[in-house]
Amino acid sequence: MNTITTCNGLNLQQMTETVNALSADPSLAQFRFRACNRWINGGANRSTIKGFYGAGVEDTSRTKPFVFTNGEPPVLLGNNEGANPVEFLLHALAGCVTTTTVLHATARGITINSIETELEGDIDLQGLLDLDPDVYAGYRNIRIRMDIKADCSDRELDDLLAFAREHSPVCNTVCRPVNVVVERGEVTQVSAA
Amino acid sequence: MNTITTCNGLNLQQMTETVNALSADPSLAQFRFRACNRWINGGANRSTIKGFYGAGVEDTSRTKPFVFTNGEPPVLLGNNEGANPVEFLLHALAGCVTTTTVLHATARGITINSIETELEGDIDLQGLLDLDPDVYAGYRNIRIRMDIKADCSDRELDDLLAFAREHSPVCNTVCRPVNVVVERGEVTQVSAA
Repeated sequence: MNTITTCNGLNLQQMTETVNALSADPSLAQFRFRACNRWINGGANRSTIKGFYGAGVEDTSRTKPFVFTNGEPPVLLGNNEGANPVEFLLHALAGCVTTTTVLHATARGITINSIETELEGDIDLQGLLDLDPDVYAGYRNIRIRMDIKADCSDRELDDLLAFAREHSPVCNTVCRPVNVVVERGEVTQVSAA
Repeated sequence: MNTITTCNGLNLQQMTETVNALSADPSLAQFRFRACNRWINGGANRSTIKGFYGAGVEDTSRTKPFVFTNGEPPVLLGNNEGANPVEFLLHALAGCVTTTTVLHATARGITINSIETELEGDIDLQGLLDLDPDVYAGYRNIRIRMDIKADCSDRELDDLLAFAREHSPVCNTVCRPVNVVVERGEVTQVSAA
């Protein structure tokens, strides 16, 4: 008889096996994620996300692509065709900090009852519009407030959140300067119409 | 008779009025974007995005919220409930660089025929899993390849892309260290179930 033991919705045996496999062979920890995007009109464009490389192979678990549409609100010259890119960044950040929190809570034997987060980020659009060379185009500050309920002390929760902030891939990407190369060239991935 | 003149899908009169208004009163350029997120289970969670503050007022243009689900593929202990957060980050980045390109092409009088981009980013998961303290949790490098067709020279396109890389809010957020504060507390925004 096989029994699957889970904590916080994660399969504990699979989690241990994954960590052991990556510890034994760090080349398996090298992941390469991808997206392709097609401009529609104005501030609207659409991304297709499906394959990625990781754990030494090209992933084939997804039969259909994920498709997401960026748009802009009227005040930013759009028609709310979708959330806008800086809002999608907050979604990515919320999800990554949450998943990192759940992963490391599980590793510490903490059972989580609920997590809700709210995020707010400040942008001065003078940067995007090139109206003032001293203004950054991006977020100046981002605040994440998390309401987390779990079977541990407040001290343990504070430790867990500080750890998640440092180890979340999206949070680390935002907090640290990352090398982004933009070049012109032919695109080979297939994108949604 | 009113005639609406557009270029690349953007209303030129509205664009000029917006730029003039923000130039005259930089306080109108201060935007505050938001998201709220609720954990579902394991690596799945869901964000709700609706309101934001900008141009001196709370925006009311959206009657319904945008809702997005983060998930993880099986190799990362999930069931592909959605794209994962680091993939959503690539979607945000693709969209922002594209929209910034379109905006500044329009300001330069360049008509765009098509834009397709593909993005690829490298992550070493030893960072997320805390297996090696010298490995960053986030993206090490992100490459954006853009296939853009427009009524201008290659030299003008290269200038435009370099400008978009510097002035895209999401690209700037990724390239520059941004202050992210994570704290525990009560959440007041309403999130999707």
